[in-house]
Amino acid sequence: MEERVGIGVDLGGTNIKYALASETGKIFKEGLRPSYAQSDKMTILSNLATAVDDLMRYARSENIRVDVVGIGTPGNVNIETGMLMGSTPNFRDWCDINLSDELGSRINLPVFADNDANVMALGEARFGAGRAYRNLICITVGTGIGGGIIINGSVYRGAAYAGAELGHMVIDMEGIPCNCGSKGCLEMYASATAMIKRFVSYCQRDKVKIDAKDLNAAYLFELYQKAHPQARQTIDESIYYLGRGLASFINIFNPEIIIIGGGVADAGEVFLNGIRDVTFRYAMEKPAENVKIERALLGNRAGFLGALNFAFEQLDEIS
Amino acid sequence: MEERVGIGVDLGGTNIKYALASETGKIFKEGLRPSYAQSDKMTILSNLATAVDDLMRYARSENIRVDVVGIGTPGNVNIETGMLMGSTPNFRDWCDINLSDELGSRINLPVFADNDANVMALGEARFGAGRAYRNLICITVGTGIGGGIIINGSVYRGAAYAGAELGHMVIDMEGIPCNCGSKGCLEMYASATAMIKRFVSYCQRDKVKIDAKDLNAAYLFELYQKAHPQARQTIDESIYYLGRGLASFINIFNPEIIIIGGGVADAGEVFLNGIRDVTFRYAMEKPAENVKIERALLGNRAGFLGALNFAFEQLDEIS
Repeated sequence: MEERVGIGVDLGGTNIKYALASETGKIFKEGLRPSYAQSDKMTILSNLATAVDDLMRYARSENIRVDVVGIGTPGNVNIETGMLMGSTPNFRDWCDINLSDELGSRINLPVFADNDANVMALGEARFGAGRAYRNLICITVGTGIGGGIIINGSVYRGAAYAGAELGHMVIDMEGIPCNCGSKGCLEMYASATAMIKRFVSYCQRDKVKIDAKDLNAAYLFELYQKAHPQARQTIDESIYYLGRGLASFINIFNPEIIIIGGGVADAGEVFLNGIRDVTFRYAMEKPAENVKIERALLGNRAGFLGALNFAFEQLDEIS
Repeated sequence: MEERVGIGVDLGGTNIKYALASETGKIFKEGLRPSYAQSDKMTILSNLATAVDDLMRYARSENIRVDVVGIGTPGNVNIETGMLMGSTPNFRDWCDINLSDELGSRINLPVFADNDANVMALGEARFGAGRAYRNLICITVGTGIGGGIIINGSVYRGAAYAGAELGHMVIDMEGIPCNCGSKGCLEMYASATAMIKRFVSYCQRDKVKIDAKDLNAAYLFELYQKAHPQARQTIDESIYYLGRGLASFINIFNPEIIIIGGGVADAGEVFLNGIRDVTFRYAMEKPAENVKIERALLGNRAGFLGALNFAFEQLDEIS
């Protein structure tokens, strides 16, 4: 029997990443286009439809049958109905829309949607760093901190599809005010945004000139390698904060593996080893026994591969 | 068909609570005896066997057939094998013992064991405050803070039966050193022990005389009702700390309900309302939507009823 093929779409704050791929993760064609995140919802929807159409055309030209479309999107999605609820700061108008209905009617294929962090976790669980495990935590460290929880092989979404907000676990209850309305959330300490903010403040404090337009996590890690004192302090602290957060996740979940994704994970083994040191120093002995901490393996592809995998799962469930 | 009957046992730091009960939670006879927690493991085991024997004798006299024994115990239990791993400070020698084998051979009945916080959560989920829900968090606030997680109707135990250490989520990363080796754990702020410690220090600070031998959570709540200033400060802080912790649990789990058990939960609606206020002020909007926060309903009976329910589940699984 031939493998089923579908289209996976990952709607990000900057780009839409999408691919025509098989059930086992074989990618036939990939695409990338701007996401116009701040547009009205109909523009974003058309844009998603155009991305899917691109790949449909390709599939037709290659005589490949497309069975389903899976979407990973910011916000909370009711996966049974396809309804997107609750917008995020990057996507102000992107909510209160039924993605299965609206997109499905435009492209004439079954469409299933889930939260972007959930499908990313699922992608890594099925095809990436989590392949050998059934219970895992996936944490994406970038502009913010996103989380995905896989329990017994399935995504855990919470009672109203709104759980796994791992970046909004408090680690310093009287600490930095967070966009979510709380204070001291992990995201305010360990995200790339928090890292850059601290770095700038340390440079100002020490009267060190920095080129503000080159500031991103990758550049900070470069400076770190060169023993730049302010970059050192910044990143050592980020390692500490993230490790303290992961230790709590270990005590709560006793997972088999924690997978770290996002730009920060690309910093390499020195960073990862630092995080492991802090995490295992602060986690409890029993819950931490045998827990692995690894970087995500699929990079940008985790989202669309996970979205597609989710779509096949849903297709099987309704048929 | 008649209901099945079994014996549920809850091994606590002070007492063993146990009962002969039916599958649907009908209690025929209850018992209580000291747990001798600091004895060697063979003494504790004999004590458990004596408790079970008491009820077996009663069951025989009433012509009730006993099918199974379920035990809730401190420590991590491999529920497949019955092996108890890892001791707790209150039970120094109580580890590295196979409860199913050792107790089963003494009493000649199938014995299944699980962690005490897990069975307490299961008891409340099946027969108590969580009856109407499938996804719930149970937090027991007493000497320490224990946790149980029910996902989709089943206890979530973690990959190595060592998860749900909800009292050891950090809330103040540079805060009070914890017995677990970390610092700033929720338990160090919101347990009854932490409450009493803070109260004593505030009384000393303000040169207020207190009767040290009457100090327990119930007494502090009495003083709170009488507007005792140091009790007020202490309990208002405990409410705040616990609420901050629960807000994180909501962001992580998006549960349907959080159930609060242990002595502190008996303080009543004023305390519970205070916790609700703080929790919903700090939790994110979407994960907190429709979440209930309620006190446990079964008191001391949650443990043995949950242990017995767990034992019936295991019995069904192996047969």
